Amino acid sequence: MNEPSARRDRGEAIFKEVFGREPRAGNYPDFLEITTEHLFGEIWARPHLSLKERELVALTAVALARTDWELRGHIGASLNLGMSREKIIEVLIQLAYYGGWPVANNGLRVAQEVFAELDNAAGKDADDDE
Amino acid sequence: MNEPSARRDRGEAIFKEVFGREPRAGNYPDFLEITTEHLFGEIWARPHLSLKERELVALTAVALARTDWELRGHIGASLNLGMSREKIIEVLIQLAYYGGWPVANNGLRVAQEVFAELDNAAGKDADDDE
Amino acid sequence: MNEPSARRDRGEAIFKEVFGREPRAGNYPDFLEITTEHLFGEIWARPHLSLKERELVALTAVALARTDWELRGHIGASLNLGMSREKIIEVLIQLAYYGGWPVANNGLRVAQEVFAELDNAAGKDADDDE
Amino acid sequence: MNEPSARRDRGEAIFKEVFGREPRAGNYPDFLEITTEHLFGEIWARPHLSLKERELVALTAVALARTDWELRGHIGASLNLGMSREKIIEVLIQLAYYGGWPVANNGLRVAQEVFAELDNAAGKDADDDE
Amino acid sequence: MNEPSARRDRGEAIFKEVFGREPRAGNYPDFLEITTEHLFGEIWARPHLSLKERELVALTAVALARTDWELRGHIGASLNLGMSREKIIEVLIQLAYYGGWPVANNGLRVAQEVFAELDNAAGKDADDDE
Amino acid sequence: MNEPSARRDRGEAIFKEVFGREPRAGNYPDFLEITTEHLFGEIWARPHLSLKERELVALTAVALARTDWELRGHIGASLNLGMSREKIIEVLIQLAYYGGWPVANNGLRVAQEVFAELDNAAGKDADDDE
Repeated sequence: MNEPSARRDRGEAIFKEVFGREPRAGNYPDFLEITTEHLFGEIWARPHLSLKERELVALTAVALARTDWELRGHIGASLNLGMSREKIIEVLIQLAYYGGWPVANNGLRVAQEVFAELDNAAGKDADDDE
Repeated sequence: MNEPSARRDRGEAIFKEVFGREPRAGNYPDFLEITTEHLFGEIWARPHLSLKERELVALTAVALARTDWELRGHIGASLNLGMSREKIIEVLIQLAYYGGWPVANNGLRVAQEVFAELDNAAGKDADDDE
Repeated sequence: MNEPSARRDRGEAIFKEVFGREPRAGNYPDFLEITTEHLFGEIWARPHLSLKERELVALTAVALARTDWELRGHIGASLNLGMSREKIIEVLIQLAYYGGWPVANNGLRVAQEVFAELDNAAGKDADDDE
Repeated sequence: MNEPSARRDRGEAIFKEVFGREPRAGNYPDFLEITTEHLFGEIWARPHLSLKERELVALTAVALARTDWELRGHIGASLNLGMSREKIIEVLIQLAYYGGWPVANNGLRVAQEVFAELDNAAGKDADDDE
Repeated sequence: MNEPSARRDRGEAIFKEVFGREPRAGNYPDFLEITTEHLFGEIWARPHLSLKERELVALTAVALARTDWELRGHIGASLNLGMSREKIIEVLIQLAYYGGWPVANNGLRVAQEVFAELDNAAGKDADDDE
Repeated sequence: MNEPSARRDRGEAIFKEVFGREPRAGNYPDFLEITTEHLFGEIWARPHLSLKERELVALTAVALARTDWELRGHIGASLNLGMSREKIIEVLIQLAYYGGWPVANNGLRVAQEVFAELDNAAGKDADDDE
């Protein structure tokens, strides 16, 4: 395992690569530190799986956990890492068979909300351009 | 969706590609037919995800479900599709953080049993060759 | 298994019998097709369990999955198939002991919302009659 | 709620009706008392659901919980209450879609063991008759 | 087990000690009676664990169940029994490792809402004092 | 967060205090290092919860996860940290209500096996003393 400053820097870099933004200073500084330094700086930094593969595992796990707020974050991360909407939908259809219809229907509903928000935001941007 | 005979043929072909063997006629012929014709012939046959990606989703879901017998099957399928032992172990380490230590420890224990059986079988084969 | 057109027709008929309405064309046409043609046209169409028994299994599973949106649908389906409110409440009380208090309390809260909406809608209808 | 002696008597009677045998004095007398007096004497004794319906809910919940030992008990209870093997298998197939393939495959494997033990026991009885 | 009136009285007293308020007469009088008389009057009343220890088990279980509404109640109960906010947060961080990041992140989000509501209510009270 | 050597030493010390033995070098050296250095050296080492409170959270979570092998380890850890058998049984009875009867029955069965092994080992030791 690694020197504290090394894992912090690497954790922040990987977090940003996965989520497309800096970690947000929030109400739980200790848990943010653990998440950034250890989960992203030491685990996501490990060899053998690419970031896309790690995200596919995380997306699957969070869809099965049915925690909507978390799931939004990992749908965003999947898009950010270059996974298409079709692939995300297909993961959820595959999960209908490995976690059941409630998992798939719940995930598809959340995905639809995320996609609609992105389309709305893009629409506003397009309007701003006029 | 597809003609019955077309989906049966495709299901058997994909099943064999994933598990490296024919579906086994067992005690539940109806459920085997559903699994082969629909799950493998119509769902695993869909576009947008490769067989390896579908297996990564299935392996993750089954590890989280902690059904050891099923998990053995999907560790075997992952190996059969060309995933290395290191990658399988790494999926389980990633799941320590997305499903908890009990999921990872349980999965690693099952993986170890599968790997040991394969090594024993390979060892016997090697002995047979002498 | 069955010819595509046969399973589509049967799936739509069973879906309507269970939910009391046509399947809604939504944002995921492929998953709707799988749900209608395969889940309702081939699985709910199988022998050995009545539609009411299948719904009792589905209601139990969805209550345990704690996916509120899905649960609303299956409370509606249970009512539609002739299960009384008392029976639905009793299933959730039974689940306090087989899935824990969080499952029961969550389910009872969702059921209360569904019942209140139905009463409100009925109240409005009654007002419209005046 | 009821007088202690009334609920004990009723609990023992319902337990015996469900499982086809007396509650077994085991290593946890307090939990056995809670199970017999409260769960069977007060909850299973409630109106609105028949014993068969309560067992269908319990069987579904225990199959989803994937606790093999418990599941054996509830497959036995289902048979004892007059549910056929075909119906039990069909509940597990329905659960493939509401809890995922790992739940169904695990449940079907346990059911097969229970059925085989019963057939073996019946076979021995038949031999004894000769 | 106990006389009905004795368990009702004790159940109401323990419920009030845990949640800091009387049980609320709601839409499910039977389930409220079961909860008060049996769960609080007979189970929480048992020896070997203190109320604080029972609440720690309940808080952990409800956080893992990810039923937000229930979780709010048990975060409130934990505070009411004298557990500090720091300890509640720490339970959720511990659960990141025994249930996964989705459980911890979901619980921390709910805790933040509960703490903010308490601070707002306290702020209003402070304003009223002026 | 901490220097690598500091967290390794602290992790090994806390692991030993919890489980009453050194971490076992097994087949997954990386995961053992993560478990020892991070989970025990950085998380179990955090303030706000005592080791006994952390173990109560872990025991609850593992009982709910129904991973028997892990559960054995945490029943052993609970005993090692001074929790009585009565308290462990009582946690499982409390979990009957917060996770359902299958969780409690499964946990009680595993606890009984652990207690019996300890009694057998103690019996052999006693015999050896004669």
